[in-house]
Amino acid sequence: MQIAIIGLGLIGGSIGLGIKAANHESRVIGIPRREETIQEAIRLGAIDEGTTDLAKGVAQADLIFVCTPINLIIPVITEIAPHLKKGTIVSDVGSTKQEIVAKAEKLLPKGCYFVGGHPMAGKETTKLSAAEAALFKDRKWLITKTSRTSSKALEKLEMVIGWLGGLTVNLDPKTHDLVVAAISHLPLVLAAALVNTVAAEEQKELMGRCAASGFRDTTRVASGDPILGVDMFSTNQKAVMKMIKSFKKSLATLENMIRARDNEGLNKQLSLAKAFRDQVYINKEDLK
Amino acid sequence: MQIAIIGLGLIGGSIGLGIKAANHESRVIGIPRREETIQEAIRLGAIDEGTTDLAKGVAQADLIFVCTPINLIIPVITEIAPHLKKGTIVSDVGSTKQEIVAKAEKLLPKGCYFVGGHPMAGKETTKLSAAEAALFKDRKWLITKTSRTSSKALEKLEMVIGWLGGLTVNLDPKTHDLVVAAISHLPLVLAAALVNTVAAEEQKELMGRCAASGFRDTTRVASGDPILGVDMFSTNQKAVMKMIKSFKKSLATLENMIRARDNEGLNKQLSLAKAFRDQVYINKEDLK
Repeated sequence: MQIAIIGLGLIGGSIGLGIKAANHESRVIGIPRREETIQEAIRLGAIDEGTTDLAKGVAQADLIFVCTPINLIIPVITEIAPHLKKGTIVSDVGSTKQEIVAKAEKLLPKGCYFVGGHPMAGKETTKLSAAEAALFKDRKWLITKTSRTSSKALEKLEMVIGWLGGLTVNLDPKTHDLVVAAISHLPLVLAAALVNTVAAEEQKELMGRCAASGFRDTTRVASGDPILGVDMFSTNQKAVMKMIKSFKKSLATLENMIRARDNEGLNKQLSLAKAFRDQVYINKEDLK
Repeated sequence: MQIAIIGLGLIGGSIGLGIKAANHESRVIGIPRREETIQEAIRLGAIDEGTTDLAKGVAQADLIFVCTPINLIIPVITEIAPHLKKGTIVSDVGSTKQEIVAKAEKLLPKGCYFVGGHPMAGKETTKLSAAEAALFKDRKWLITKTSRTSSKALEKLEMVIGWLGGLTVNLDPKTHDLVVAAISHLPLVLAAALVNTVAAEEQKELMGRCAASGFRDTTRVASGDPILGVDMFSTNQKAVMKMIKSFKKSLATLENMIRARDNEGLNKQLSLAKAFRDQVYINKEDLK
């Protein structure tokens, strides 16, 4: 199988490394934006060969991963669509899916298949140099399924994600976007707002100096790439706004109880939160 | 030196283990509520001997750590005050300090010294069985200093905290409470509200199943003991309310930008958050 990876940053590079590490007979073609990246990716062992020519790079591919920044995914698919051979499967790694999947399904020629994907893995950098074969191991990899999705294409994509150690979850694009708004985009909004709250305090330096593991973990996602964050919010605006609205209600509940010194109510709310969170992470253990 | 530890849970037990591991000639007296705990603590190596009799336990102590739940700290100090020998230093590990320090300073007899403390360490359980000698290693241990604080007593306490590997930071009780409201209590409010937001969604199960490291870390503190959380909020109500108010402003800033699709503004806000957070954790590395 020939697999093309468009965009060789952390995610694209890690997909390449993971495929090569799984030691399958697949040939990996890397298609970065800049010529220099080809040599770096070959040296790292992430690709077998590379080109910056999209049309040439995808021509013989059986499976293509579009791993560019989210705003380039549709432009890239538009550009490669006329050059695909029959039967090619195109996937992406964008963190929102409704818009991308709707457009991509229309762009691909008959006989080619789009299956949207979203690996739930990352680091605090998006550089190729941070790529690693095990980046997706035991991580969720969300895959969107629509009325137009080919089940054969879906299975093939799941197989390759399986090589990378990813755990696939199928869901429709709209549900996907609401789910990630809740578990990924809302946490980023809150983490950034929390850091900015402390940074606005007169005692911010002392607060930073005293900060322990609670603050560190609660705010960790705020150290991610701001550009990725802006992309998430702008491509998933509606769902993110909906989740912020729901969050404000939950916050108001706690705030009112703290104000009223309703310790019984607070204990109940904290116990509910603990129970739900503990169950989420017990379930995750079960899955491994 | 004879050191008494009142309350043998995670924190009291870890202080005992840490002192014994530092291999100093100190003798550690454990004073738990229940008789059975004495045997467990001796078996774990956290104490040399124990008693459930407060008056007897503290009579010969040079330094006392009060490691009970926060609402018992003042009642315990009230009870032990008449039984202390001259020169005894009393400290505590409560996570809020204004009220405790003001009351404790008044309760102790002349010639005895109170120095409030707050180790920034913990686990998702408060049981003695989870105690470990290294719990405080490289963790901040906040110490309150007031106009009444004896500098000799402060130094002695800092020395023992040094045995445990803790990094002391001195600050006044009011500043302490605002600092921990910002970096510890507000994060808990947000983490619990975030979990409860997801738990209130129709798709909560799917969301839990898809949740990755971002959600896990942002909500980690919500898995702590609810009783500790209620204690934090009720003993530090004013500062927590103040920080929630400031947070709501930061959240509104982001929400308005997401609504207005102000990507430039969002990039700036996320960049500010990243810069402050990255700096906090670079500074922490420097301290080690």
